Amino acid sequence: MTMEAERTLGEEQLTQLAEVAAQLRVDSIRCSTKAASGHPTSSLSAADLLAVLISRHVRYDWAEPSNRANDHLIFSKGHASPLLYAVFKAVGAISDQELVDTYRRFGSRLQGHPTPALPWVDVATGSLGQGLPVGVGIALAGRYLDQLPYHVWVLCGDSETAEGSVWEALDKAGHYGLRNLTVLVDVNRLGQRGPTELEWDLDTYRRRVEAFGCQAIVVDGHDLAAIDDALGRARQATGPTVVIARTVKGKGVPEIENKVDWHGKPLKPDLAERAIDALGGVRQIRITGPQPEPAPPTGAPAAQPLQLPRYDRGAKVATRNAYGDALRAVGVRPNVVVLDGEVSDSTRADRFTDAYPDRYFEMFISEQQMVAAAVGLQVRGYRPFASTFAAFFSRAYDFVRMAGVSRADIALSGSHAGVEIGADGPSQMGLEDLAAMRAVQGSTVLYPSDAVSCAALVAQMVDRKGVNYLRTTRGAHPVLYDNDEPFPVGGSKLLRGGDDDRVALIGAGVTVHNCLAAADELASAGINARVIDLYSVKPLDRERLLAAVRDTGGRLVVVEDHYPEGGLGSAVLESLADLAEPIRLTHLAVRGLPTSGTPTELMDQAGIGVSAIVAAARASV
Amino acid sequence: MTMEAERTLGEEQLTQLAEVAAQLRVDSIRCSTKAASGHPTSSLSAADLLAVLISRHVRYDWAEPSNRANDHLIFSKGHASPLLYAVFKAVGAISDQELVDTYRRFGSRLQGHPTPALPWVDVATGSLGQGLPVGVGIALAGRYLDQLPYHVWVLCGDSETAEGSVWEALDKAGHYGLRNLTVLVDVNRLGQRGPTELEWDLDTYRRRVEAFGCQAIVVDGHDLAAIDDALGRARQATGPTVVIARTVKGKGVPEIENKVDWHGKPLKPDLAERAIDALGGVRQIRITGPQPEPAPPTGAPAAQPLQLPRYDRGAKVATRNAYGDALRAVGVRPNVVVLDGEVSDSTRADRFTDAYPDRYFEMFISEQQMVAAAVGLQVRGYRPFASTFAAFFSRAYDFVRMAGVSRADIALSGSHAGVEIGADGPSQMGLEDLAAMRAVQGSTVLYPSDAVSCAALVAQMVDRKGVNYLRTTRGAHPVLYDNDEPFPVGGSKLLRGGDDDRVALIGAGVTVHNCLAAADELASAGINARVIDLYSVKPLDRERLLAAVRDTGGRLVVVEDHYPEGGLGSAVLESLADLAEPIRLTHLAVRGLPTSGTPTELMDQAGIGVSAIVAAARASV
Repeated sequence: MTMEAERTLGEEQLTQLAEVAAQLRVDSIRCSTKAASGHPTSSLSAADLLAVLISRHVRYDWAEPSNRANDHLIFSKGHASPLLYAVFKAVGAISDQELVDTYRRFGSRLQGHPTPALPWVDVATGSLGQGLPVGVGIALAGRYLDQLPYHVWVLCGDSETAEGSVWEALDKAGHYGLRNLTVLVDVNRLGQRGPTELEWDLDTYRRRVEAFGCQAIVVDGHDLAAIDDALGRARQATGPTVVIARTVKGKGVPEIENKVDWHGKPLKPDLAERAIDALGGVRQIRITGPQPEPAPPTGAPAAQPLQLPRYDRGAKVATRNAYGDALRAVGVRPNVVVLDGEVSDSTRADRFTDAYPDRYFEMFISEQQMVAAAVGLQVRGYRPFASTFAAFFSRAYDFVRMAGVSRADIALSGSHAGVEIGADGPSQMGLEDLAAMRAVQGSTVLYPSDAVSCAALVAQMVDRKGVNYLRTTRGAHPVLYDNDEPFPVGGSKLLRGGDDDRVALIGAGVTVHNCLAAADELASAGINARVIDLYSVKPLDRERLLAAVRDTGGRLVVVEDHYPEGGLGSAVLESLADLAEPIRLTHLAVRGLPTSGTPTELMDQAGIGVSAIVAAARASV
Repeated sequence: MTMEAERTLGEEQLTQLAEVAAQLRVDSIRCSTKAASGHPTSSLSAADLLAVLISRHVRYDWAEPSNRANDHLIFSKGHASPLLYAVFKAVGAISDQELVDTYRRFGSRLQGHPTPALPWVDVATGSLGQGLPVGVGIALAGRYLDQLPYHVWVLCGDSETAEGSVWEALDKAGHYGLRNLTVLVDVNRLGQRGPTELEWDLDTYRRRVEAFGCQAIVVDGHDLAAIDDALGRARQATGPTVVIARTVKGKGVPEIENKVDWHGKPLKPDLAERAIDALGGVRQIRITGPQPEPAPPTGAPAAQPLQLPRYDRGAKVATRNAYGDALRAVGVRPNVVVLDGEVSDSTRADRFTDAYPDRYFEMFISEQQMVAAAVGLQVRGYRPFASTFAAFFSRAYDFVRMAGVSRADIALSGSHAGVEIGADGPSQMGLEDLAAMRAVQGSTVLYPSDAVSCAALVAQMVDRKGVNYLRTTRGAHPVLYDNDEPFPVGGSKLLRGGDDDRVALIGAGVTVHNCLAAADELASAGINARVIDLYSVKPLDRERLLAAVRDTGGRLVVVEDHYPEGGLGSAVLESLADLAEPIRLTHLAVRGLPTSGTPTELMDQAGIGVSAIVAAARASV
């Protein structure tokens, strides 16, 4: 009976909700018209949904956004930022003045699309189809790790359901039984340039949602009582729920309702004024919605002492194996969580899984969802490590990019980098990952040459801010370092060298081994060659490079198992760009399209093998 | 009655098909065991499907792979290459010796995963979830452009249905009514590291497929008659069909059937020998399957003369507008086809659509499918131009990467690049696209500063090989060039300069305008600054840069609306890496995370505006 009662809103409550919805509409118009920029019509369609959601369902202490028991509210349709910020005003999180005067202005935290510059925003959205997959990550944390009753509410647009990532997310929501996740799809029928593919075919939406393992509730998105009922049922559901709401774009402003050519356009001041008047003018209603129940004390177990794996110098160990070993070792930190794209036996993430099955989430072959889940998990304070082949992080590049915009703290490990993988051929070779990952805002890019350095870097990835990318190698190569050697991020190692070096051979990862062999060959021919292991590709050890330039007269040979653009060679060049001394850098990289073969055949063919390095060094001295 | 008769295979036919299937299994084992590498178990599960498909349904003149009427056969599960190559042997396309002796060897065209090095392979596969979306592109060409009765057959694995791109593809197949597309899903229940998410839950597969607008036929994938019936019905269907085949991984080798830990592992020689014996030994059956009906003569209309748009020097025109204008102009070439991710009113691709609606395909917000469809269309000889915001090509980066591996000839246009877009904020700013696109094998990267150069470059993109990427700007900036000025790919323009230049200001796109304003300011202070428009970012005009180094004593200021890693600055540095002369390059790029604001505010904040360029030039001289 209680549930029934909750579902039945009285007239007074409905009137109040309608007032809230009107305020959200008016404020969405006001801020975007003042900014002369933004997406009011996409906000108007969802105003009723949000009025009910924040008034009666989202349990959130707006004065304390860090409260662990707060629900999460994500606008996957980030362009509806006027509505989100109008919500923040309605709950008293921001002032009316901030909303209207600063939206989309330089220096304002009320940016065109939401970012975590606002404490109530978990992640940046605006690249469609990302908020929902991130929400899945948060819900995973809630259900399996935090075991707290917070709920994750995600507002999606209808257009963004064309993104495959939405279906990766619903599939995982169903698979993991995320009853703490509710998705509201604002089916306003109109995309940017015209009708959406499915328009108001709500039944097709319903069938898709149900086939992907989620409960679907179809409602009129402007019927406040129906919305309230749907959201109440969603919170009580035994699995994830998608509320498919039929709405009208521009709802509340009859002149522009359900019209094409009104996407992403603010109302001109005269139209805005008429619309606001018709909506009953400006309001300053302050909502007090439901509050979270107090969270129990965290009581997380204290971390055990970290014991990194130890290796015998000279033994052949693949760095991907060291990644797995180190991952298992850092598992003593209870905030470490691991994800993989159904290749954990190749990336060696399975070595963690065996020890900590409760902190491993199989993402199957959906790299976009994998990275998004990592971003969601870090929202809740976890340190996710996500792994797949280096090549396949390209599938999730937009998610990595947006993780940078979100200033998310995540760790990614790409195995099977470069032509070194051999027979599998170019589709499986990460050959552009260094370029792509370096270009992510605030990223760290690491590429160890041996097991000891790999383990040491994994240990640092547990605490390092931002997007951290580790590149590992398929094949086994000799351990080069003693177990207690430090490998600070931003550092490098001098493996061969003295005052009379005539050339510096600079590698990272597998090419360090080729550089060492080349240096030996050169030494036997009377040419002293310095060998530098640039295991930290970003940030780079500029001091080490400056010394090499000074000592060798600027004779550098950079060798990388990567395409020539944007990788290790570029990193070195960027670092030395402003140097007064002349530099003659020979850049050995994979310049053609590789094929299948043995690692040695392919490295030789690409001109990054030992003989090519020797030849380049000889030519430079 | 005819259809019924076709569906009923006699005992003799079934025996023949079983023999073919046995041969495919034996050959899959032989080649992978000999190579000691590859995925035999994933081949064995699909051998019966392929035996029926190639014997009775694929209409293909294997001696003439360029026959326009041939069906298309795509292994989206590219790791089943042993089976594909066994098929090629069975139809007489390759010899038994080539199959067994060269598979996965260095120098062989039988690579670990299929590539178009083989004339019967349309596109490289091996990154899962890509073959199907590409097949959708080919089917679009067949149904809407070629209007030929060829059929597109795609073999998918079950694991890869976890990729959202598969659902983007089925959605588009349904939306466009691609009755010429049949997908075979080899549901062998086992992924790489264990069971798939859905295992043998065929009903869920069926409901998903149907909800996404395709016909689903569920069959026992080892029942030859049932397979034949399903494929016959698929070819006759009025829409796209997905044959969901329940199969057993490793089928035919009882010791390893349906076992985990047998993914991607060749059989050891003794096990292989036993298995081949049990399967009846080596066969040399030569299949003659159905042949295509002769294609009618192409009769494509002759291209009208190209009339590029003309602009008034000094007028303010956004390069995205010039893209749209030029796209419409090159529409006189009947092979030009345009795709967009539901933002054609922003990218200005809609200017083409208005003139040539029959050659425009709306991909809605599914960038992965958009790029994949472009790859499919070029398989059929079309020149696709695909556009979205520069930032959102990151969503399709794996598809662009694989287009490079396929040596596909496509044109991509990314609008709204850099902080110049202003108020929308960082989620919408392409700031890593130059790095990512430069790192694609065989790519061309263009970034025009004005409307005239943009149009001239679009015209060249119609014929240029490989992945061609054009970066355009949101805002309107002055036309800098006369209409008949040539802009060869690989070239650059000297906009200011003389013998007494003390510094060279190097920009591309929007920063060229900032460089010009800075040069004017410097000139008024008595400092002659050269200004170079590097509109061709890859390939780069090294000669122009060498001259600038020589003339200015190596004083270069490179300015880009892009993150500092891997973009224009790196391109310049890579180009000059081996130069003996000293270079002192000041690199102005977007080093922090941008926010919202006006273009000028944001460029100034990033240090790529006029005053920053002036300061950098002054500091360098």
